[in-house]
Amino acid sequence: MRVEEKELFKEYFKNLSDRERVIFEGGISLGTIFHQFVGTPVSKNSKYSLERAIEEAIKNQPCVYDVKVKINYDGEEYIELRGDMLDVELMIKVNNVLGIFRLEYIEELNYPLMYVKEIKEVRE
Amino acid sequence: MRVEEKELFKEYFKNLSDRERVIFEGGISLGTIFHQFVGTPVSKNSKYSLERAIEEAIKNQPCVYDVKVKINYDGEEYIELRGDMLDVELMIKVNNVLGIFRLEYIEELNYPLMYVKEIKEVRE
Amino acid sequence: MRVEEKELFKEYFKNLSDRERVIFEGGISLGTIFHQFVGTPVSKNSKYSLERAIEEAIKNQPCVYDVKVKINYDGEEYIELRGDMLDVELMIKVNNVLGIFRLEYIEELNYPLMYVKEIKEVRE
Amino acid sequence: MRVEEKELFKEYFKNLSDRERVIFEGGISLGTIFHQFVGTPVSKNSKYSLERAIEEAIKNQPCVYDVKVKINYDGEEYIELRGDMLDVELMIKVNNVLGIFRLEYIEELNYPLMYVKEIKEVRE
Repeated sequence: MRVEEKELFKEYFKNLSDRERVIFEGGISLGTIFHQFVGTPVSKNSKYSLERAIEEAIKNQPCVYDVKVKINYDGEEYIELRGDMLDVELMIKVNNVLGIFRLEYIEELNYPLMYVKEIKEVRE
Repeated sequence: MRVEEKELFKEYFKNLSDRERVIFEGGISLGTIFHQFVGTPVSKNSKYSLERAIEEAIKNQPCVYDVKVKINYDGEEYIELRGDMLDVELMIKVNNVLGIFRLEYIEELNYPLMYVKEIKEVRE
Repeated sequence: MRVEEKELFKEYFKNLSDRERVIFEGGISLGTIFHQFVGTPVSKNSKYSLERAIEEAIKNQPCVYDVKVKINYDGEEYIELRGDMLDVELMIKVNNVLGIFRLEYIEELNYPLMYVKEIKEVRE
Repeated sequence: MRVEEKELFKEYFKNLSDRERVIFEGGISLGTIFHQFVGTPVSKNSKYSLERAIEEAIKNQPCVYDVKVKINYDGEEYIELRGDMLDVELMIKVNNVLGIFRLEYIEELNYPLMYVKEIKEVRE
């Protein structure tokens, strides 16, 4: 049983609608990706395994439905993973509500932005 | 100017109400606290400086109004910071909406839970 | 060309013997493994990908010859990666000197210990 | 009692001279500083508290005698801590041997380099 299926766990989220819960869990998982993995040594040869490991790690978290991670780096030398190299699409699902979230570097802001791309009702 | 005050930044959040935006930023900042700092060497002598540094770091993030961090550890030996030692109260404010968030260890779940304690309208 | 093969890089290590250099780089890489990845969400299903990603990441670092990472966790629920779950064997090689390093939890010390298992001369 | 003063702990380091032990612990602590804290939100207002917290955290680790951390950043906007912003001087002491270690960004290498500045005999 996943932790979010436990009755006691659900008690703590009665003050949120399904849509709000999706938004909350999306924020947590984007913050996790950034702050757990920024700093990791990465090269064009090792980035594939890191992308997959980030995805598998995040799928453990509550309400994560799917996640795709791409690391934008093709240089010859290894460097530390920076936030501006991360391109993430994250899906969070609570009952019939599916949220699609993004982490991507926005050049005009010089900022790796986390935002909500879309939230929609889906059939189970 | 804080990044969240820039017009382009705001463009990305037009699909969220103020309340939803509060919830999103609260999730991000709780995920940040946990995943940036878990693992840090900590002792009862050093925890005070770490608590303050976490608070000051998080206040940089978008829409953070206030944050209090308490590390529950009083042993003699130094250890790595674990999630179950973190007790956080975080306030996020967007226009007139203030959200109060918690990260605390819930013994019955054996889980360091992030949740929304309260969201309310405030006067500016 | 790896960074450690650059002449300027080598200049900084002229005050160390090959054996000492092996010991220094071994310490760095063990510290990296622990403090980069502790806190990562992990379950028995996701740990394999994390073990491989840690290995691939560390192989980028100077003088790393090989590394094997094992995460000791088989519970049903996902948890944060802790130092006491890490079992690492790391090989560092500088010219003809090979060092074998360990990170493992020592129960009598209640401590995830990093130490030098063996250093030996090898033929190229 | 610090962990490094325990007899069982010392057993694991009998294969190293004091000088080698200094080098090993120096490597670990530099790797720790980099990989624990890179990614932390930082601004010119918050960097002082982060510098102090890093110092206090690292002083917990075995054989750390002293450490000074400087974060090179004076921009107006908050950013993630990067390795190239870190300027560290670390002292490790084992019996009569004192090692001075550095982490600093070397522009010609485009690399935040960890190296041994000096190792010397000191009177107790």
